[in-house]
Amino acid sequence: MGVSLADLAAITGSELRGDPDLAITGVGTLAGAGVGQITFLSNSKYRKYLEATKASAVIVGAADADACPVAALVAADPYVAYAKVAQRLAPAARAPGVHPSAVVDPGATLGSGVTVGPGCVVGAGAVIGDDSWLVANVTVLERVQIGKRVIVHPGAVIGADGFGIAQDAGRWIKVPQLGTVLVGDDCEIGANTTIDRGALEDTVLEEGVKLDNLIMVAHNVHIGAHTVVAGCVGIAGSTRIGKRCLIAGASGISGHLNIADDVMIMAMSMVTSDIHQAGQYASGLPLDSLANWRRNGARFRHLDELAKRVKALEKKSDKD
Amino acid sequence: MGVSLADLAAITGSELRGDPDLAITGVGTLAGAGVGQITFLSNSKYRKYLEATKASAVIVGAADADACPVAALVAADPYVAYAKVAQRLAPAARAPGVHPSAVVDPGATLGSGVTVGPGCVVGAGAVIGDDSWLVANVTVLERVQIGKRVIVHPGAVIGADGFGIAQDAGRWIKVPQLGTVLVGDDCEIGANTTIDRGALEDTVLEEGVKLDNLIMVAHNVHIGAHTVVAGCVGIAGSTRIGKRCLIAGASGISGHLNIADDVMIMAMSMVTSDIHQAGQYASGLPLDSLANWRRNGARFRHLDELAKRVKALEKKSDKD
Amino acid sequence: MGVSLADLAAITGSELRGDPDLAITGVGTLAGAGVGQITFLSNSKYRKYLEATKASAVIVGAADADACPVAALVAADPYVAYAKVAQRLAPAARAPGVHPSAVVDPGATLGSGVTVGPGCVVGAGAVIGDDSWLVANVTVLERVQIGKRVIVHPGAVIGADGFGIAQDAGRWIKVPQLGTVLVGDDCEIGANTTIDRGALEDTVLEEGVKLDNLIMVAHNVHIGAHTVVAGCVGIAGSTRIGKRCLIAGASGISGHLNIADDVMIMAMSMVTSDIHQAGQYASGLPLDSLANWRRNGARFRHLDELAKRVKALEKKSDKD
Repeated sequence: MGVSLADLAAITGSELRGDPDLAITGVGTLAGAGVGQITFLSNSKYRKYLEATKASAVIVGAADADACPVAALVAADPYVAYAKVAQRLAPAARAPGVHPSAVVDPGATLGSGVTVGPGCVVGAGAVIGDDSWLVANVTVLERVQIGKRVIVHPGAVIGADGFGIAQDAGRWIKVPQLGTVLVGDDCEIGANTTIDRGALEDTVLEEGVKLDNLIMVAHNVHIGAHTVVAGCVGIAGSTRIGKRCLIAGASGISGHLNIADDVMIMAMSMVTSDIHQAGQYASGLPLDSLANWRRNGARFRHLDELAKRVKALEKKSDKD
Repeated sequence: MGVSLADLAAITGSELRGDPDLAITGVGTLAGAGVGQITFLSNSKYRKYLEATKASAVIVGAADADACPVAALVAADPYVAYAKVAQRLAPAARAPGVHPSAVVDPGATLGSGVTVGPGCVVGAGAVIGDDSWLVANVTVLERVQIGKRVIVHPGAVIGADGFGIAQDAGRWIKVPQLGTVLVGDDCEIGANTTIDRGALEDTVLEEGVKLDNLIMVAHNVHIGAHTVVAGCVGIAGSTRIGKRCLIAGASGISGHLNIADDVMIMAMSMVTSDIHQAGQYASGLPLDSLANWRRNGARFRHLDELAKRVKALEKKSDKD
Repeated sequence: MGVSLADLAAITGSELRGDPDLAITGVGTLAGAGVGQITFLSNSKYRKYLEATKASAVIVGAADADACPVAALVAADPYVAYAKVAQRLAPAARAPGVHPSAVVDPGATLGSGVTVGPGCVVGAGAVIGDDSWLVANVTVLERVQIGKRVIVHPGAVIGADGFGIAQDAGRWIKVPQLGTVLVGDDCEIGANTTIDRGALEDTVLEEGVKLDNLIMVAHNVHIGAHTVVAGCVGIAGSTRIGKRCLIAGASGISGHLNIADDVMIMAMSMVTSDIHQAGQYASGLPLDSLANWRRNGARFRHLDELAKRVKALEKKSDKD
């Protein structure tokens, strides 16, 4: 069984060093892979395991090729090559079709090759594109449109009402949420992530957007193509995020902002203003011992006063 | 068919300018609405679209009424009037009843006009008030009491065990969670939000509380009437929040605190002490470039020392 | 009916003061309990209610025993004793078995005494240990292994794909997630928490780990025995957390870190470096009025410059 090393070289565009007919049956880590398995070396931190690997083959960069004690695939980017090899050797175990426990409204449209897993709910007028996969217990509400080859992980909710309320004489009344959600091709949406429908226009994920778990995408948000958002991020209403951005975990982005293309936001950042330029941004404070943190945090509450005192000293000093 | 402009004026208490018999069939944005649609102008940022609107009618404030090129409803609060018009023209598509895929314990009590959507679970002894709606894949556990006209969005979990553990000889043992959750009339609970049951007494949402998505409400929390909580907020156990508060997104509120009425907490704030007075509060740090942030963050760890150095300079300077 | 006070003394290893045959039928708070109920006094804040309690018995520490006006169980740790009493008097209402609405793959293995509640999904090759309980709408994906006496609250997702992507010529391609999740005995997993499967190796919770609601545990994370994590925490990929740690709510822990045993991390902390020593750690900034916060936050952006100005003043002052 397995796949020949030659086939894996072809799939990945790698240079093959070793027996082209070697049958590879699975993948493993550099330290843990055994006979019949292929592994990879991408992070130099793991180079120490290369010499003693028990794998039958290793995907390496050119710099490590000579040091590889077994057959090798020499790739421009070993991690990308590994991803393609793993996709070939360990394809996702899913069969197209609607699980009997799923509830798909008769007015929904499913493309060819779609899988709707157990416990999923798909509302009226929803469209799920070809080869997309709702894994389990996913809720896709009415009129949501999902592109092709999209994966939605368990517990995700797409198209719930946005948080639209208006204050009428001391009570909050509901503003109907009449837009929907458009999810582009090749997006992936993590477990228990929620994407609200637009208020009047639509919430949009362009193609290739990858959302991790427990992310909140509010109404009318627009996320550009190939942007990646890590877990626990909240994006407030009507914010527009550019293409190819990287938003690290647990960041919060206020509403009605514009974030440029190619912006990278570090973990736990608070974004409250537009970002006009590509680049790396951060906020938050690094961890410290509780005792130090208490001392410094107390000073922060008087930082403005401290700055004024420094200014006063400078004035006095200038006069001397 | 649609609704006459005169009827919409009556519903909203607006002054009608134009043909009272004009039939309105739907809503749209100022820039996007067309024939038969009504739109609104509330945020002055969009005033530039008023002159060229293709809508058949616009809901405006008094100041913009003369500039409206089509029929107008002149309202004290155009956004509130719009909410009422949209509720009339685009009522939520739901029919009362229990979806066949839902699991409602025979010991639960459903009021009249209740909708229990697909995949929902309602436990023994739970009570769902008249005209409330569990949209889909909602879990309401045993003995939870939900008022009238409450909307619970998909994936929300109401009445899971609170996080009650006690340390017994190096192991954590479970403290049974014997209270429940009381949700007042006219509350709305967002997708994948969780509200834990009380430990001995109850977790309470008073009437008109609006919770966005992915919020954590821990055991014994009490939230006052008409308080609004945005997405990704965590509220720890036994904290009491007043009436008419606004808690912005991704804030965290420690346990056993008292927050006064009419408090507004800005996004991503950390609340670790009681708040005795109405007003606006914030914490956190604004975003900066990664390079600047690293420099300033490093200084923060020595802020206490810096303050002492300034004090020393001042002393020396006073002596001069 | 009920349980005799003597039996409760035996269960909890307490000293009994009063009638050993007194029948106790339930638990309540010190202020709210009535005839037939037992309560406890653990937090000194509530001592004021002891004298007037209407409970039939109170669990107290030695220091409060003489002041107890009714029968007493005198315990080393009244809260632990209360937990055991409540477990005995109010056992969780669950019957072993698979609810008809649950979807358990024929290739999954359920131990004896397992309860799979309504709407749960259990994938192929998953193993659920004896006496474990998936409450409702829980998703356990293929090959996940759950130990004995584990409780998984509604909406939790165990074993979704980790966030593994690699950039291939401007597009993100999926890195198959081939590991699984191993959950030790006596763990408890909160509502809507997500634990991703490992990329190649496994995500691991050792025994006795307690996770609250809405927590994100990324791929390859390893959490040591008896560690407790409060709600809304995010733990990024491949991080290793020690035994007996306490991670307070809404903290964020970056990937590929090592956190020692017995570390306590305060609420809303940002952890971006290894923690080598047991102890208490914090980050973040305390709340302030919006006006003060704006002033101080603006100064933070120039903190490095301020520190340099102080340095300059010191140099100048030294020369004087």
